[in-house]
Amino acid sequence: MKTLPLIHDTRLVEPRYKLEQLDLEFSNGERRTFERIHGSGREVVIIVPLLDRDTVLLTREYAAGLHRYELGLPRGRIDPGESLLEGAEREMKEEIGHGARDLTLLRTLSLAPTYMTHVAHVVLARDLYEEKLEGDEPEEIEVVPFKLDDLHELLMLEEFSEGRAMAALFLAREWVRREAGA
Amino acid sequence: MKTLPLIHDTRLVEPRYKLEQLDLEFSNGERRTFERIHGSGREVVIIVPLLDRDTVLLTREYAAGLHRYELGLPRGRIDPGESLLEGAEREMKEEIGHGARDLTLLRTLSLAPTYMTHVAHVVLARDLYEEKLEGDEPEEIEVVPFKLDDLHELLMLEEFSEGRAMAALFLAREWVRREAGA
Repeated sequence: MKTLPLIHDTRLVEPRYKLEQLDLEFSNGERRTFERIHGSGREVVIIVPLLDRDTVLLTREYAAGLHRYELGLPRGRIDPGESLLEGAEREMKEEIGHGARDLTLLRTLSLAPTYMTHVAHVVLARDLYEEKLEGDEPEEIEVVPFKLDDLHELLMLEEFSEGRAMAALFLAREWVRREAGA
Repeated sequence: MKTLPLIHDTRLVEPRYKLEQLDLEFSNGERRTFERIHGSGREVVIIVPLLDRDTVLLTREYAAGLHRYELGLPRGRIDPGESLLEGAEREMKEEIGHGARDLTLLRTLSLAPTYMTHVAHVVLARDLYEEKLEGDEPEEIEVVPFKLDDLHELLMLEEFSEGRAMAALFLAREWVRREAGA
């Protein structure tokens, strides 16, 4: 286990963005000031909804960061008073019109751990049922069924570009395969 | 192909962080203001360095965002005047003490496409040779060889948490397998 750097001081240099400076001393005596960005403080979930053992329900949604429609997974922030799994199921109902009787927290993923504190919890959703909740989406989100066995093809699609969503799909496939003893 | 929202106006609301507001009109007439964060403007590369057909060289490095040591991949920003592949090789020499005679751009990944413009280019590096360049790292980065066949185990390690790095490894493995005609 490596010895973590000492944090001598921290300063919030940009409150709106929660940009923070850390004065660090590494175990070899080197001193540096690193910056990091804090997330919103609300927990984030990314859901892998399995319609059946082989089929995941992807979303096709406008992504303002790239100004294009992107294939991805349902996701969102947990509301105050919700548990992670309750929030995950609400987001599913809003975005893909399905709830799930079986929700499993697979693991937590980071976004850019060297300079962002952001993490997201990956939730596997199975035993789905149809139920639509109104969310705050500006338009209906398109639902795109995709075969888990064809993940290697999804990797190469330009409109599916988010590393974290790819990782969530591989995690889910690995989980399902292990359960099946494959 | 879905019709993209019209952008009626954009405003930079936080210059230090390049936080931008977009006034959008969706094709159904709905109007919303979305926010997005711009990256630094410099290109970013993430490198998958293969020591041999089955072995990738991971890094174990201090990650200020999570204040812990993280397993990951060499990466960095391209310097002015460098090509993507030149920058990728320089980062490799600084972080893992190896250059590569064979560098291939696999694809571009987004970070959080709904609200960040950030992208990173995944570069596969093969035919490695030892060469160390001094970088700006505060301490020596630990180099951790890992078998590509054991990727499913890496998925479950707490100290390997970055979705984008996981996606880059699966992309590289898929690429190598296709070349081998497997």
